[in-house]
Amino acid sequence: MNPAIGVCYYPEHWPEDWWESDAARMAEVGIKVVRIGEFAWSKLEPTPGDLQLDWMIRAMDVLGRQGLQVIVGTPTATPPRWMIDKHPDMLAVDAQGRRKGFGSRRHYDFSHLGYREESARITRILSDALSDHPALGGWQTDNEYGCHGTTYSYSPAALDGFRLWLENKYGTIAALNQAWGTVFWSMDYNRFDQIELPNLTVTEVLPIHDLDFRRYSSDQVAAFNKVQYDILKAARPDLPVIHNFMSRYTEFDHYDVAETLDVASWDSYPIGHLAVSDEPEETKRAYLRQGDPDNAAFHHDHYRTVGHGRWWIMEQQPGPVNWAQANPDPLPGMARLWAWEAFAHGAEVVSYFRWRQAPFAQEQMHAGLHRPDREPAPAYFEAKQVAEELAATGIGGTAAKGRIALVFDYQSEWAWDVQPQAAGFKHGTHVRALYAAFRKHGLDVEILSPKTKTFDGFDIVAIPGLFAWTDELREAISDFDGHLLLGPRTGSKTQNFSFPARLGPDLPQNLLDLKVSRVDSLPPGIEVPVKGGGSARLWREKIEGGAEVVMEDVEGVPVLVSQGKVFYLTASGDRALMQRVADYLIAEANMPVLTIPAGVRCRVRGGFRIYVNYGATAQMLTKADDETAYVVGGADIPAAGVTVVKLATAG
Amino acid sequence: MNPAIGVCYYPEHWPEDWWESDAARMAEVGIKVVRIGEFAWSKLEPTPGDLQLDWMIRAMDVLGRQGLQVIVGTPTATPPRWMIDKHPDMLAVDAQGRRKGFGSRRHYDFSHLGYREESARITRILSDALSDHPALGGWQTDNEYGCHGTTYSYSPAALDGFRLWLENKYGTIAALNQAWGTVFWSMDYNRFDQIELPNLTVTEVLPIHDLDFRRYSSDQVAAFNKVQYDILKAARPDLPVIHNFMSRYTEFDHYDVAETLDVASWDSYPIGHLAVSDEPEETKRAYLRQGDPDNAAFHHDHYRTVGHGRWWIMEQQPGPVNWAQANPDPLPGMARLWAWEAFAHGAEVVSYFRWRQAPFAQEQMHAGLHRPDREPAPAYFEAKQVAEELAATGIGGTAAKGRIALVFDYQSEWAWDVQPQAAGFKHGTHVRALYAAFRKHGLDVEILSPKTKTFDGFDIVAIPGLFAWTDELREAISDFDGHLLLGPRTGSKTQNFSFPARLGPDLPQNLLDLKVSRVDSLPPGIEVPVKGGGSARLWREKIEGGAEVVMEDVEGVPVLVSQGKVFYLTASGDRALMQRVADYLIAEANMPVLTIPAGVRCRVRGGFRIYVNYGATAQMLTKADDETAYVVGGADIPAAGVTVVKLATAG
Amino acid sequence: MNPAIGVCYYPEHWPEDWWESDAARMAEVGIKVVRIGEFAWSKLEPTPGDLQLDWMIRAMDVLGRQGLQVIVGTPTATPPRWMIDKHPDMLAVDAQGRRKGFGSRRHYDFSHLGYREESARITRILSDALSDHPALGGWQTDNEYGCHGTTYSYSPAALDGFRLWLENKYGTIAALNQAWGTVFWSMDYNRFDQIELPNLTVTEVLPIHDLDFRRYSSDQVAAFNKVQYDILKAARPDLPVIHNFMSRYTEFDHYDVAETLDVASWDSYPIGHLAVSDEPEETKRAYLRQGDPDNAAFHHDHYRTVGHGRWWIMEQQPGPVNWAQANPDPLPGMARLWAWEAFAHGAEVVSYFRWRQAPFAQEQMHAGLHRPDREPAPAYFEAKQVAEELAATGIGGTAAKGRIALVFDYQSEWAWDVQPQAAGFKHGTHVRALYAAFRKHGLDVEILSPKTKTFDGFDIVAIPGLFAWTDELREAISDFDGHLLLGPRTGSKTQNFSFPARLGPDLPQNLLDLKVSRVDSLPPGIEVPVKGGGSARLWREKIEGGAEVVMEDVEGVPVLVSQGKVFYLTASGDRALMQRVADYLIAEANMPVLTIPAGVRCRVRGGFRIYVNYGATAQMLTKADDETAYVVGGADIPAAGVTVVKLATAG
Repeated sequence: MNPAIGVCYYPEHWPEDWWESDAARMAEVGIKVVRIGEFAWSKLEPTPGDLQLDWMIRAMDVLGRQGLQVIVGTPTATPPRWMIDKHPDMLAVDAQGRRKGFGSRRHYDFSHLGYREESARITRILSDALSDHPALGGWQTDNEYGCHGTTYSYSPAALDGFRLWLENKYGTIAALNQAWGTVFWSMDYNRFDQIELPNLTVTEVLPIHDLDFRRYSSDQVAAFNKVQYDILKAARPDLPVIHNFMSRYTEFDHYDVAETLDVASWDSYPIGHLAVSDEPEETKRAYLRQGDPDNAAFHHDHYRTVGHGRWWIMEQQPGPVNWAQANPDPLPGMARLWAWEAFAHGAEVVSYFRWRQAPFAQEQMHAGLHRPDREPAPAYFEAKQVAEELAATGIGGTAAKGRIALVFDYQSEWAWDVQPQAAGFKHGTHVRALYAAFRKHGLDVEILSPKTKTFDGFDIVAIPGLFAWTDELREAISDFDGHLLLGPRTGSKTQNFSFPARLGPDLPQNLLDLKVSRVDSLPPGIEVPVKGGGSARLWREKIEGGAEVVMEDVEGVPVLVSQGKVFYLTASGDRALMQRVADYLIAEANMPVLTIPAGVRCRVRGGFRIYVNYGATAQMLTKADDETAYVVGGADIPAAGVTVVKLATAG
Repeated sequence: MNPAIGVCYYPEHWPEDWWESDAARMAEVGIKVVRIGEFAWSKLEPTPGDLQLDWMIRAMDVLGRQGLQVIVGTPTATPPRWMIDKHPDMLAVDAQGRRKGFGSRRHYDFSHLGYREESARITRILSDALSDHPALGGWQTDNEYGCHGTTYSYSPAALDGFRLWLENKYGTIAALNQAWGTVFWSMDYNRFDQIELPNLTVTEVLPIHDLDFRRYSSDQVAAFNKVQYDILKAARPDLPVIHNFMSRYTEFDHYDVAETLDVASWDSYPIGHLAVSDEPEETKRAYLRQGDPDNAAFHHDHYRTVGHGRWWIMEQQPGPVNWAQANPDPLPGMARLWAWEAFAHGAEVVSYFRWRQAPFAQEQMHAGLHRPDREPAPAYFEAKQVAEELAATGIGGTAAKGRIALVFDYQSEWAWDVQPQAAGFKHGTHVRALYAAFRKHGLDVEILSPKTKTFDGFDIVAIPGLFAWTDELREAISDFDGHLLLGPRTGSKTQNFSFPARLGPDLPQNLLDLKVSRVDSLPPGIEVPVKGGGSARLWREKIEGGAEVVMEDVEGVPVLVSQGKVFYLTASGDRALMQRVADYLIAEANMPVLTIPAGVRCRVRGGFRIYVNYGATAQMLTKADDETAYVVGGADIPAAGVTVVKLATAG
Repeated sequence: MNPAIGVCYYPEHWPEDWWESDAARMAEVGIKVVRIGEFAWSKLEPTPGDLQLDWMIRAMDVLGRQGLQVIVGTPTATPPRWMIDKHPDMLAVDAQGRRKGFGSRRHYDFSHLGYREESARITRILSDALSDHPALGGWQTDNEYGCHGTTYSYSPAALDGFRLWLENKYGTIAALNQAWGTVFWSMDYNRFDQIELPNLTVTEVLPIHDLDFRRYSSDQVAAFNKVQYDILKAARPDLPVIHNFMSRYTEFDHYDVAETLDVASWDSYPIGHLAVSDEPEETKRAYLRQGDPDNAAFHHDHYRTVGHGRWWIMEQQPGPVNWAQANPDPLPGMARLWAWEAFAHGAEVVSYFRWRQAPFAQEQMHAGLHRPDREPAPAYFEAKQVAEELAATGIGGTAAKGRIALVFDYQSEWAWDVQPQAAGFKHGTHVRALYAAFRKHGLDVEILSPKTKTFDGFDIVAIPGLFAWTDELREAISDFDGHLLLGPRTGSKTQNFSFPARLGPDLPQNLLDLKVSRVDSLPPGIEVPVKGGGSARLWREKIEGGAEVVMEDVEGVPVLVSQGKVFYLTASGDRALMQRVADYLIAEANMPVLTIPAGVRCRVRGGFRIYVNYGATAQMLTKADDETAYVVGGADIPAAGVTVVKLATAG
């Protein structure tokens, strides 16, 4: 379908006699999609077995009559209080050994099989009751898996599951001892039931012990989702099953979970996300009311890959949120800008959270399209404008395929968190720094999973900090004839979290004749300048082998080396170094670039280039050769402004 | 009685043959009041039922013979070790679920009814034994309720009590679900016994859940105090029952506890309080050896209201303390200054803590009027000087009634702690900033409780950040013909912690035609300058309605608006903005002001104006029109100096 | 024996067919000593009672054939998993009440008598099997007692042990109540079994309660070590029993533990130790790749005393480690410098940790003499050079005896940790500041225990911050005719953690007529300049008495006073003040000094003076009068360089 805006709506929060006017007004705004139900279990089943689905059907009737498509969320993120009476041990246990109780949300343990069955039961009930409703447009499973740190639980249920998972993986305890290197500190096990969860030990556990627990925990999220997916798809194979993921949340492998999803979506709160991030203070200050200008885009591109090409914004920030330390008002126009940027990256739907600010409960300070007194809030008008502009431009199609790709891998997130070696050097930060550097020139970027088997069609592929090679990536790089950039730590471990026999990056000599002989990790604030500009910081490798030196630091340590079209970056860099590396690769690959003012970003979709100005001041765009008429805005792009320009050739 | 100095004395800590000389020396100093006994339970009842009160009676005999009045503390803050054998579950549980054991003090749970009965029992025993002692001058209940974070307990006893309290409050579970807004995340309850305490949840609980728990916990403190009060007053209705409160401690509602007190007192440790406060580093540095120049005064005025007009300092810092990170020596003269300032604000008694520094136990580094080797410490001489000056001036009467008042409300402390929305914006800090701004001009200020029904007699009343209107305050403002200043967040919630239907400040249009349409909260360090001077910071509101703009910020957002004599401040401000607002109101109300040098503060009592110099350098006072002769000190007021001047008209 | 280098080797980590070539190569390097076995329990006894010692004997055979002496570590720091099945309650409990489980190392409770017996059992088994092996050169007990905070446990076993220990110490509960001062807050006990461990109380416990628990815990470490020592010495009285202590670790009394050791050793990781220390940022930056230039030396001198004159480095850092936040590569040459410095201070053996970097498990990022791919790492060549230089110079003998001594006392570490009074003023930091000040002039320093009975032979003795006098020190100072420097807090408490009757420093008037009348503690950043240079900071005392003022601060408060040759320092100082005090004492004692460039340090051993340059730039040495020929290096000492010069007279 053509891109559309949506909204999150909670009929159970409002008097039923408000529903009609709410729905009519949604239609007026130009909303096409409404998500409901994901927190409504206690209204659907107030006591065990007492099912009350009529009100939801009536709400869908009302919405459907306005031509709105309804996405129904399974309510499994908020099991009712009586569920805890049935399954007291379904509550998760935190790493400090504390059972986390009822009273908020996500109070369940992914390892608890009894609750997994309850989740199947309520999903089946909803599927049976609603699958044939004419307004039904799709399903959302649960809500924000892992939010509030709920991927990991240190409960008896998790312990049982983990032991079984290990036994399935390793077969014999001797095989586990061998793979884990338990010999190191007399940690050999005699039986699987002696293995504990990796918390509350005297000092750190084996890195593979920790990593396997993260793999196990991730698998439970995927298994939990699959149960709902299978039920929902059995009834309506034609309707999409969606989950709403989050920003910078990597505790489970989203690629794996998305094996049982049709569409990925994510919840985009740019200002809150910047506030709670570890971005530098100057970024937080400059983009206080806009959010990080590359973070949403990165996730758009990432979730497009997670969703097999299809993705939505399920929750879009409409104004101040309630959950950061400070919650500033967005610049006027940002609720429009964020939506346009998402569409530029290929979003099918951008759904604002929420129709009306709730005057009660935990999120009462979270803005909506309306205020608690039912009056429109500023985002109401911005959403309406977006809907009108979408219609006017007739934009469609999909995001243009970028010719640069970055591999983003969840296991690397876990591995470098398990074994930082240089505090402050973070996998995600490093990947995003490279993303921002490529994107600065207006180049569209694709994100790839570590199961990617071919890099065909790309001019440049970067593998910024891969923990351990997958067979697929080995295959992809061996066949690739574009420019390949490998970053520090890449290939430095085996899947069992040991050094590979030939050390990292562990590639055949004909591809890259290089060994990392030593790691020099540096505290924040210590920088080693690189000749020509930029600095290495936090992570530095010393290498040996025959690769040619492209850049070196003032101590003569190679920073960027190459062998043919394979490049290896030995360090993490400041912004200037990362930009120099990206620029060098772009020049080597002979890619044309755009000239874009500070604070402005762009992307191509459906024959249009969409510019957005994250800056707090207006900028003047330079018309690129492939650009024809401005269809939204113009060359003079104000703060929080959007300019859409028609391209000469379809994207 | 005329103002008098006192001292805290622990006869059980010293050989009995020292008592006579100690008492004689107290009389020499000019001490009139001696507090004893509040930690002596294990000496009064070494094993259950073995009562040993003779030594205390002998101590009172000795003190009484010197004309000293004795305040006896009930020893319930330190139950003996054997009590834990009797009631193992009387120990409180912290928010992390850990039972806090014996070995220090305040090891009891306000919700534990068994211990409440033990507290009644020992109070009855003391009342029976001592009520007729001729030296008895009054009682202190317990000691520093809530110290060390002991108001809240997360124990089974607290859980039982909380559920019962909720049932009493709401009647039906449906009423609770409705009032709490449990529908939000499927948090509906079927029965009261399903409700848990608001700790150890996955993410935040309902704000009203948290607030109701704080209300419940506060009620337990009040109930605990009432048990002792009723017993003590039954025997000697003529003697005051007092409790010693603390600085900036707001976990329970002191107005409620004081419903069963005759006199409020508080324990004033200005240097330690500044050290542990969140005041800015520059204040901590400037007043390192003096304490915050407005904090003690604020509490003096506040506890005067809490005590229905009667208040004491029960513990006055005499030198370095032991409990802050650093414990500097006060400037010479401060032990005198602090006492004089308390008397200026109406204190009946200022009692130094303690007669002699203990050479053993937890507080061995805490100074007294004597050193551990029995020699006098510097404060000994300062206390003596105060006693002589009180006598020489003949100061009496009460604190002059200020014509400016501020509402201080405990529920607002809790509410904005439950829901900060802007980290760093704190109710107490905001109230005290306004207090300091008014006081800078030498104006006497009164503190009012939220149960105040009339503002008669005030020129200016400020309600700096009220959580929710009380019926009494609504009545008071509707009748008030002075100048009223409402601060940000005022009236923005209902008593059930929801938005009021017409949004904050939720006043009738004829009084103030204004709605807060949006909150813009800012991180520390981001300031929005206000035209004319000062800046908004942390909290900013955007408003709509018909009020007239008095001040606006550089973005054109109204900061101070008015409708007749009602003013509304939309933001929290830096020191300069708060001063401008206070100055504006003072000018509007046409109040005469004094000119006072930096670091100097003053207050009027009994026909005298008392100046104190908190600064580290001498200052020159300007004689005001109503001032006649200097009776203590003079116009040239040294660092840590005191000047008392007789007024032409009695205060 | 002559000084020798060694290495830590883990035959169980490598294929047995690598052992021969490893051993041959060790001999080539010049290694004489190899430590093995300290983490091998699960390979020695895979299931209870199934003893597998053959592999270890074969490993010793291989090593012995190359002339290497083997130090066998008892494996008690890493009990196998099956041991937890036998003794589930042997796991320690942390101060938060959490049982710390299996999965890393040091998972045992020193108070657990069942595990103490298991430790005796495995020690007896090793002793029986290996005592007669010709390659056996000595034993190491356990590994790094207390590492990862394992000295203290809050378990039922510890509680039982503590109560018994108290009963043994005090005899009656009345005696304990009296000694502890329990009267203070009604803390009197009726029976020993009412006393709890000093954790999880509402506020702080009695300081003596805390101190006695630390004494008890320290005694358990000593008792644990004695069990192994007695067994090992019974079989081979001629072989040394050694333990490897750590840097700045003071949770147990090392002097006490060393009563059952023949040689002290410690594990020296200079770069990691600086990184995790609280040294100022500028020091961390200047010595990022070298480590603090005085810290290793201090420990060398200290462990020489702990070891009754005999000491080793059991683990020497060879390259980047894995356990600090950042783990930088040492400057080239540091692995040689550190070894030479240790030998200069009298080390018998410097043993590098470890032969080869492990490609698996927790320490896989910790460098060794070889890389994980079996290639030599840089330290391999540096170790070889050290071995060659030792042989070439023929250096032998012992460390020259310094004429300056400092008392270092563990109880003072504990006491000032229990009762800081001035946060940031730390006993160890204060002692080391004085150590560095004396050492700056090239003077050799000795460290003394608080059981030292005579100061004969010293020109200057400093007691920097002694908690409470021991009979031995009282005897030593009363007989001493050199210069004595007492620092702040010295003698300010009794052994029961109370003020002495005549207050600190509690010395006879004829020795020092001085009382500390008041303590003025200051927050970091507040400094009080001393006339003539330097500043007092953190801790300041005000005194009375007849001592003569040598230095005073700008407020006229005496800083250094003297009575004859006894000096008392009333404050903790910045680097400049500490240097001035040291310089003053050196001048008074009329001691000759050397002139040494910045960053360079030296010490005398066996007729040689060894200079090491910790700085990052080369320096030029001035030849001293007693120096003859340079035998290693020369006057021009490079960064990380070593210069050894022959002295005219044997040291």
